[in-house]
Amino acid sequence: GTLGGLGLALGLWRGQAALAAAREDEEEKELRQRFMAPPVSGLGELRRRRRELRSRMEVLIMETQAEMCRALADLDPGASFAVDSWERKEGGGGISCVLQDGEVFEKAGVNVSVVSGFLSEEAARQMRSRGKSLKAKDGKLPFCAMGVSSVIHPKNPHVPTMHFNYRYFEIEEADGTKQWWFGGGTDLTPTYLNEEDAVHFHKTLKEACDKHDLKLYPKYKKWCDDYFYIKHRGERRGIGGIFFDDVDSPSKEEVFQFVKSCAKAVVPCYIPIVKKHCHDSFTPEEKLWQQLRRGRYVEFNLVYDRGTKFGLLTPGSRIESILMSLPLTARWEYMHNPPESSKEAEMLEVLRNPKDWVH
Amino acid sequence: GTLGGLGLALGLWRGQAALAAAREDEEEKELRQRFMAPPVSGLGELRRRRRELRSRMEVLIMETQAEMCRALADLDPGASFAVDSWERKEGGGGISCVLQDGEVFEKAGVNVSVVSGFLSEEAARQMRSRGKSLKAKDGKLPFCAMGVSSVIHPKNPHVPTMHFNYRYFEIEEADGTKQWWFGGGTDLTPTYLNEEDAVHFHKTLKEACDKHDLKLYPKYKKWCDDYFYIKHRGERRGIGGIFFDDVDSPSKEEVFQFVKSCAKAVVPCYIPIVKKHCHDSFTPEEKLWQQLRRGRYVEFNLVYDRGTKFGLLTPGSRIESILMSLPLTARWEYMHNPPESSKEAEMLEVLRNPKDWVH
Repeated sequence: GTLGGLGLALGLWRGQAALAAAREDEEEKELRQRFMAPPVSGLGELRRRRRELRSRMEVLIMETQAEMCRALADLDPGASFAVDSWERKEGGGGISCVLQDGEVFEKAGVNVSVVSGFLSEEAARQMRSRGKSLKAKDGKLPFCAMGVSSVIHPKNPHVPTMHFNYRYFEIEEADGTKQWWFGGGTDLTPTYLNEEDAVHFHKTLKEACDKHDLKLYPKYKKWCDDYFYIKHRGERRGIGGIFFDDVDSPSKEEVFQFVKSCAKAVVPCYIPIVKKHCHDSFTPEEKLWQQLRRGRYVEFNLVYDRGTKFGLLTPGSRIESILMSLPLTARWEYMHNPPESSKEAEMLEVLRNPKDWVH
Repeated sequence: GTLGGLGLALGLWRGQAALAAAREDEEEKELRQRFMAPPVSGLGELRRRRRELRSRMEVLIMETQAEMCRALADLDPGASFAVDSWERKEGGGGISCVLQDGEVFEKAGVNVSVVSGFLSEEAARQMRSRGKSLKAKDGKLPFCAMGVSSVIHPKNPHVPTMHFNYRYFEIEEADGTKQWWFGGGTDLTPTYLNEEDAVHFHKTLKEACDKHDLKLYPKYKKWCDDYFYIKHRGERRGIGGIFFDDVDSPSKEEVFQFVKSCAKAVVPCYIPIVKKHCHDSFTPEEKLWQQLRRGRYVEFNLVYDRGTKFGLLTPGSRIESILMSLPLTARWEYMHNPPESSKEAEMLEVLRNPKDWVH
């Protein structure tokens, strides 16, 4: 009776526990298959805290990394991604996936980082200069930053370089209040202008934005043109896309949903362009012009890019992952000026005077 | 009598004037032959104000440019220097000499600039951050800056890259007082370490310093190691040399004499090393390592170099002349780590832990 009942109850409990454990194993297996490597916070932690925004954002950036890497690897079957998981001794870590010197891609990097610790004095200064009032406790500002960032440099000069980055930031102030914001963007840097590609790229991004608010695309398109500006050259880095930073309204949930739509658009906005052009023929002169544009890419990233600067200023940050964005090769010629009405001059014209690609 | 006397006197005067004019023509001809192009301030102005330090410094930087260009052209007979004189609409101008894609040199630039105008807000901020108290009048700070700067990137990986820069700066404060200082230095960036070359280079610089004060070489050698530091890599750019800035004592004349000795040392410290190695054989792997080191050179120049930053911040400055220092080609590989005890690792070791080459 009682013992039997107890036995039955224990059996039932054991069965339910086994079922639950099996379900968790399944979930872990599924997550593991979805990601390029075990996530920084651990699968168990992500599952336990699955309703918290930090966990959902970490899952999103891990998924985005895997989607992009798979799409790229499919196009470059001979090459494969080196996957490095790294830890930061000050807190957190990341996963860097890099494909180098493939058939289609010269260098393709997709990086996830989830770091926490205390903001450096210099990094706090930079943030304050953007209008944030950060009240430190005993000079210390605990922060948590996570994001996915990627730069794809193809070999063929008719395939554009592409960059995206989506990130979430939290800072705890002296009185315990938390400041949080999202930032990110996706932008394209062609060596030669192809209007059809430009329209496809911008249209895909606009559709992702429009699902949330019709004001977003025009605002973030302009922000992108303004941000990726190589001031000393009077040129944009490329033909833009979208860019935003310090976004903390209307609500955490709504901004996250918007960021999710943007992250889900990175493969469809870019991969069709790669497929279309990766077998185009090209001349040595076209390759040379690509190398010169690569030089400009380096200039922007090292002189102006906020993310690169923040990385170089953050103690213990992983330099190889930050500078992954630099091309495999680049070139600087003194006084290179393309002839009037050449394809190179046509490209420069758009870099000097950005156009609207979709209305 | 009187008329005849007057005629004689006029004749004498005419003769003296003609003689003086002829002498001036000779001087102009001589100066013109000594320089790569007419100086920014004009030959007449330089002659009239020949006792003023600004004129003597301009003659020195023009001579240094010509000496270096001739020495380089002699070693690369197939190539020749493009000489561009340029004006800055805000005041002053310069002369850029560039040899590109020669037999011996990948890119060799020697630039003179003599500019004046008003300091930009950002440039003034940078100078104040170095401890200068600059009292502006109506927010304006008239300045005059002149200097010669040069970066030589050879093709052969066994010939080191070399850089020098000597400059003079004047700022007029609100109360009319003038602040002035000299800055400069000469440093070497080998792809592979050659101890004999390192000793020759440092010894030549030490001898130039020792003529003025035995304390200078050790002080400026250390300053050089500290300045050319790529913080995010934990590496120096090269094996150093000398570097100094904001030097305004013991006197204008004495500092000028010291700067002159340094400027006269640039050819003898470097050219013998080029001659010795420019026909050395090299492997594709050695060329690749050179390209990776070129990448580091770009990182230093764009992220840290004070001269480059000042140039990029100065309105109307000539970007092509400032970025002339960048190599023709550079390379970035993800996670490149030379094997232990290789020649590449030996080079890195010295870049991480600078050595004393002369005592």
